[in-house]
Amino acid sequence: MPTLSVFMDVPLAHKLEGSLLKNYKQDEDPKKMFLAYRVCMTEDGHPWVSPVVHKTRLQIAQDPSLNYEYTHTMGMESFVHASLELLLGKHSEAAVENRVGGVHTVGSSGAFRLGAQFLKAWHWESGTVYVTSLQKELHGFVFRDMGFTVYEYSFWDPKKLCVDHDMLLDVVEQASPGSVFVIGSIGEWHFTQSQWAKLTSAMKSKQIFPFFDVPSQGLSTGDLDKDTRLLRSFVSQGFEFFCSQSLSKNFGIYDEGVEILAVVALNNQHLLCVLSQLMVFTQALWLSPPTTGARIITSILCNPALQVKWKQSLKGVVENIMLIKEKVKEKLRLLGTPGNWDHITEQLGTHSYLGLNLQQVEYLVKKKHIYIPKSSRINFTCINADNIDYITQSINEAVLFTTDMSLESK
Amino acid sequence: MPTLSVFMDVPLAHKLEGSLLKNYKQDEDPKKMFLAYRVCMTEDGHPWVSPVVHKTRLQIAQDPSLNYEYTHTMGMESFVHASLELLLGKHSEAAVENRVGGVHTVGSSGAFRLGAQFLKAWHWESGTVYVTSLQKELHGFVFRDMGFTVYEYSFWDPKKLCVDHDMLLDVVEQASPGSVFVIGSIGEWHFTQSQWAKLTSAMKSKQIFPFFDVPSQGLSTGDLDKDTRLLRSFVSQGFEFFCSQSLSKNFGIYDEGVEILAVVALNNQHLLCVLSQLMVFTQALWLSPPTTGARIITSILCNPALQVKWKQSLKGVVENIMLIKEKVKEKLRLLGTPGNWDHITEQLGTHSYLGLNLQQVEYLVKKKHIYIPKSSRINFTCINADNIDYITQSINEAVLFTTDMSLESK
Repeated sequence: MPTLSVFMDVPLAHKLEGSLLKNYKQDEDPKKMFLAYRVCMTEDGHPWVSPVVHKTRLQIAQDPSLNYEYTHTMGMESFVHASLELLLGKHSEAAVENRVGGVHTVGSSGAFRLGAQFLKAWHWESGTVYVTSLQKELHGFVFRDMGFTVYEYSFWDPKKLCVDHDMLLDVVEQASPGSVFVIGSIGEWHFTQSQWAKLTSAMKSKQIFPFFDVPSQGLSTGDLDKDTRLLRSFVSQGFEFFCSQSLSKNFGIYDEGVEILAVVALNNQHLLCVLSQLMVFTQALWLSPPTTGARIITSILCNPALQVKWKQSLKGVVENIMLIKEKVKEKLRLLGTPGNWDHITEQLGTHSYLGLNLQQVEYLVKKKHIYIPKSSRINFTCINADNIDYITQSINEAVLFTTDMSLESK
Repeated sequence: MPTLSVFMDVPLAHKLEGSLLKNYKQDEDPKKMFLAYRVCMTEDGHPWVSPVVHKTRLQIAQDPSLNYEYTHTMGMESFVHASLELLLGKHSEAAVENRVGGVHTVGSSGAFRLGAQFLKAWHWESGTVYVTSLQKELHGFVFRDMGFTVYEYSFWDPKKLCVDHDMLLDVVEQASPGSVFVIGSIGEWHFTQSQWAKLTSAMKSKQIFPFFDVPSQGLSTGDLDKDTRLLRSFVSQGFEFFCSQSLSKNFGIYDEGVEILAVVALNNQHLLCVLSQLMVFTQALWLSPPTTGARIITSILCNPALQVKWKQSLKGVVENIMLIKEKVKEKLRLLGTPGNWDHITEQLGTHSYLGLNLQQVEYLVKKKHIYIPKSSRINFTCINADNIDYITQSINEAVLFTTDMSLESK
């Protein structure tokens, strides 16, 4: 009798990720291009790495005195400290009051995983989380796996082509009390003071727990402090929150997944309790995080001269993004492309909406072999001197050759 | 009214780890020493690093062509491939039949975490796992967190001072059907062919699912193939199993947690299903593993000259361990310490039992400031020319000055 497999009931899982990337890879057209990479690209089409990283990596490799012992479960203390200082500022009141701390986590979603596990166990009776539509796969997946009910939200108005404060306020006001809100790309929102006041007051009255996502501090405005100003305002308003802070993208060490889960509590006593429970979960998840990326970043952040160079490199990237966006807009103007394209330059960060409708996106993908997501939110660092003409001409065609409905909706 | 913390119900978690290490650190006696480190130590008391690692790390840091893009969820394919070849041999029948695969995991317990999560979801109705008493904290914690009922087992006979086949057979025969068995240190067991035949037959009839732990291949006998011969025999007997293979310890890259979860299935179809489900879990755990450690190891394993040097360095460590054990035994003989100490040299690997009872252990810790676990299983690489005399004299005292009960029990 043949032996039966213990795995006989295990079905093949559906692949979640990247049907767009998969289709791009299978496309044999020589003109094909992919404008939705997660990483920041250089002008010659390679993943960007801050120049200080190379040198620091080499210095670390040359240092014979370094100890490669197992890391503590909470990770490299100096790395957590430097990351928190970057996130909340040197003179954060939360830091002074000893009510901010963090855990050095792993990979690209470890901080969310750890935070979600804590919230499931220790806090969230409602078991409800709101994630942005843009991150529904990454974040939604983590929270769903922990048993949360996941709702998507969006406050990008595809008609007005801007973020809409009222849409967001609506979501908060309709949310079940005690929900978790994953709030990303905080450096890129243009809300007024009074709009913010309305939002935070609604969040407080709904007892919303904010879980911030800071995936690339400094790459929104080019100014590290400005990019997390919103977070600091939550601190001063007495919010308690979690924040996933990744330093992979703004240093260009994508493959190391260098991140922390930051915790802000009302006082030191609560903070210590939360951190102690997080340590227990970490022990059952991965026990200790890897150090190479954290070592490189800590060396840079703790050396004023290197830190200045790193900040300059971030500014350079952001200036380049703004230049590309200006050029795209100008080329569309010169081509006489119908519509107003100011929204391209009004948005901050590597990833911004082109503001195309579904038909136009489909035209670009199918007819022009330009792979962009249905939302038309692309990575502008994928556009360079070699491909900008083809891209803008294709956008022009897409707008002209799809039905008038699309133009009317703009 | 003061605001209430959302964390107000979160208590301080008990620290699980290292009360022994904590007591050692607090001890102010200049003679204090800790003989239970997890890492392999050099003769001058530093964590051991294989000399090829330094050079390879430097070469990688100097390579301008390397891409630091995000890794695939399953990790570095070349690393997984090289690790599996090391584990099962170049000509493994499972590899030829495409029924062995792996996932590149993170940290020091990521492979166990991922495997436990899979087993909980897809296989184990019994929900029962057996872990060795030596690893009850590390492994037990992971499985307990996933909802398993965890039983400890041991087959070290503290009276006969050797591993006892019948004790292990008893545990297997009493186990609930379909249990998971975590089996570690497989290179260190001296069982006869017929003893093995009895054991595997009992495991088959109980439908035990083996989850091997290979934390330091090559550091038991100095011969990589010999250290996993048992695993290969499970393959040829048609077992399906998981194996956590860590390459941190045998390369000396402790802080990177370089490991894979290896899967052996009955056929390729089952393997692909299992791997696809593991990928789904990985996405919700850490999304992508770090690469530095995996890059260093893959470079060494794929370069025959470097691989030879690495293997020589492993042999050097093992020869040194055997030398230390011989010296300890000889010094105890010269001191006239009562009892037979052959068990010290009969055991393989960095960590072996001294064969002391609780009172003797307590004497060493309290009177001599030599910190060793209650099991008296110590890391022999912590013993060197500087401390061997103090250690052996202290063991002698401990045996002489504790009650006769302890001697009789030997």
